[in-house]
Amino acid sequence: MAYLNENYLKLQAGYLFPEIARRVRDFCEANPEAARGLIRCGIGDVTEPLPRAVIDAMKRAVDELGNRETFRGYGPEQGYEFLRSTIAQHDYRDRNIDIADDEIFVSDGSKCDCGYVLDILGDQNKVAVPDPVYPVYVDTNVMAGHSGAAKSDGSYEGIVYLPCTAENRFVPEPPKEHVDLVYLCFPNNPTGAVASREQLSRWVNYAREHESLLLFDAAYEAYISEREIPHSIFEIPGARECAVELRSFSKNGGFTGIRCGFTVMPKSVVGRADSRKKLPLHPLWHRRWSTKANSVSYPVQRGAEALYSSEGRQQVRALIEHYMGNAKILRDACAKIDMKVFGGINAPYIWVKTPAGLTSWQTFDRMLHDLNVVITPGSGFGAQGEGYFRISAFNSRQNAEEVARRVQSLS
Amino acid sequence: MAYLNENYLKLQAGYLFPEIARRVRDFCEANPEAARGLIRCGIGDVTEPLPRAVIDAMKRAVDELGNRETFRGYGPEQGYEFLRSTIAQHDYRDRNIDIADDEIFVSDGSKCDCGYVLDILGDQNKVAVPDPVYPVYVDTNVMAGHSGAAKSDGSYEGIVYLPCTAENRFVPEPPKEHVDLVYLCFPNNPTGAVASREQLSRWVNYAREHESLLLFDAAYEAYISEREIPHSIFEIPGARECAVELRSFSKNGGFTGIRCGFTVMPKSVVGRADSRKKLPLHPLWHRRWSTKANSVSYPVQRGAEALYSSEGRQQVRALIEHYMGNAKILRDACAKIDMKVFGGINAPYIWVKTPAGLTSWQTFDRMLHDLNVVITPGSGFGAQGEGYFRISAFNSRQNAEEVARRVQSLS
Repeated sequence: MAYLNENYLKLQAGYLFPEIARRVRDFCEANPEAARGLIRCGIGDVTEPLPRAVIDAMKRAVDELGNRETFRGYGPEQGYEFLRSTIAQHDYRDRNIDIADDEIFVSDGSKCDCGYVLDILGDQNKVAVPDPVYPVYVDTNVMAGHSGAAKSDGSYEGIVYLPCTAENRFVPEPPKEHVDLVYLCFPNNPTGAVASREQLSRWVNYAREHESLLLFDAAYEAYISEREIPHSIFEIPGARECAVELRSFSKNGGFTGIRCGFTVMPKSVVGRADSRKKLPLHPLWHRRWSTKANSVSYPVQRGAEALYSSEGRQQVRALIEHYMGNAKILRDACAKIDMKVFGGINAPYIWVKTPAGLTSWQTFDRMLHDLNVVITPGSGFGAQGEGYFRISAFNSRQNAEEVARRVQSLS
Repeated sequence: MAYLNENYLKLQAGYLFPEIARRVRDFCEANPEAARGLIRCGIGDVTEPLPRAVIDAMKRAVDELGNRETFRGYGPEQGYEFLRSTIAQHDYRDRNIDIADDEIFVSDGSKCDCGYVLDILGDQNKVAVPDPVYPVYVDTNVMAGHSGAAKSDGSYEGIVYLPCTAENRFVPEPPKEHVDLVYLCFPNNPTGAVASREQLSRWVNYAREHESLLLFDAAYEAYISEREIPHSIFEIPGARECAVELRSFSKNGGFTGIRCGFTVMPKSVVGRADSRKKLPLHPLWHRRWSTKANSVSYPVQRGAEALYSSEGRQQVRALIEHYMGNAKILRDACAKIDMKVFGGINAPYIWVKTPAGLTSWQTFDRMLHDLNVVITPGSGFGAQGEGYFRISAFNSRQNAEEVARRVQSLS
């Protein structure tokens, strides 16, 4: 009989967001009246329509495919040149960051890339993740056999957790011990924290000293409002030797349902072979895409390209301002009733201390039942998330204002 | 330093199609005049525009995303219910095959699914593949560490190859030895062969006796013209206990650049855990999608759904008839000059014996240089493909007729 992947059996309960969906569904079925006024600030999913520039570009691309003369079949497996060069130019070279077009790999989203990247890495790597953490980093490593069993607090043996607490403002310092692979995410999901140039430099120094690989998730970089905060790990000298960056169009262009993102894989990043020879990862990553995928839908790639037009950039800016306007309203509402609030300044997430004596899930249930507001329990993101909850600013202005009113009614 | 996945270093040369692309590029640069008359019958990529029903559905879906009221963000990770139920109904239940909606998993193409499915399977499985074979089945297993080193003929230690030869009409019988995992592809890429109900029944019997898993690739089922040939492995009694089916919209709807396919994972298929307990694979596959993906672009899923409308079905039928008309022209041309021809009746591929004394790559080079026609060398698909080449019928009628003329000039 075919053996199954035993590592899947180590996974804890459901993936966080399906579990939230289940509780919300149960509540709505039991309380149809209250369900009508329910406002969802849980999952970080955008709510505003796609930018006009994207709509137009995608429809033009679909029309091209309806004509024999302009029809396209298989595209290049790593993404179309028009998109790779646009990304490399606008997101990197225009900001004085040295990234070549063929160091950009277009994908169907950075959630997917989190898993894909493990394809080209060895199973013997020691992995470190922040705590709290986007669950996908951990679960994909568990599935790949990079962990031991689950512990009672939901963490896994064999994975190094980097505590992100109010004391370190949710930005962990490099550990004392050696790790091979480190996941960093700034602006952070779920805490909304950002890392300064100095903090990131310490990570790059650690990585170069330990010959570790940094997987830098910059999915929320468009939300950075403070000038001095780096948007890319490659703003840090030396990062081209030790970092891979993950980016997404989900949260800037509103592509959560359209599916497009990319990784930046510098040719100068190396990995260790059993022979102890150092080999660049870029050819392996290129091969991974050639063998395992046919890149992303052509109309989607045209849509992503349109985000970089002057019209597209303006429209993205307006979306970010809208969501960050919500973030301010929600932050202020929590602060007004003396809740302890973090994030929401360079990220669309507000990270809030739970009311005294309540766990994250208790707070989730109370906000669901009493306020009819869905938030995300902090403990769903890891042991250090216990005692916090996340409010997402992805909503209409009207909903954000209504949530602010309901939260203030708690005082 | 981060360890890389050592298994990638076992991979042979380039993936077949990039290697063809390289030789064609070199030829065109050296012979710009001849390049203008070049006709590509190599890679199996469609050439005709998308069906009108798909264009309309995709544009409507894009418009929906441009409106706040109809905007959608993250979809269900396993695919939208509207598409899963349409597939299950039309491709299965309407044909008296018992498949539930939630046994359908929508993906970005069956090339991708070939790799994804290994995520949920153990590394200790003994794997069998046909020879010749779609290279992705082998390379994804090599990458996952399911093989030993490459041998001089391009095959890998530790993988069981099932010879497909003119003697068995390119349909292998189950092996004498035990294997855990078997890839089957009918209608076959590259040989164009199909398996009868009796032949598939012998495979299902083997799989049930050995408790093996069959990965049945039916990407070309729409090309079956002979009534008695099964379109799905699930037409065979007992297959629900031992088979997973892969399907694609690439070759019926012309989705090679749009990217959509699906797997059918029956809830009754089990795998063995180390504890020797048998567990269903369905929950693992469901979890894989929840954790590692956010399904496929919404407009793409609406496009795929449109293929099942009465208008869409007619348009698909016209596309198939077009390509199969080409196949007949190409088959007849080869037969006329006494080349030994297989396939092309239930599949868009013609599998041809090379002229006496020439290897597959020599024939490739000769056809490129003398006829300015790109074919695919059979040896690129495995050791048993040596001495054959594949002509793809995916082309305009004009090109197919011109290739037929050029081939006949060889006589």
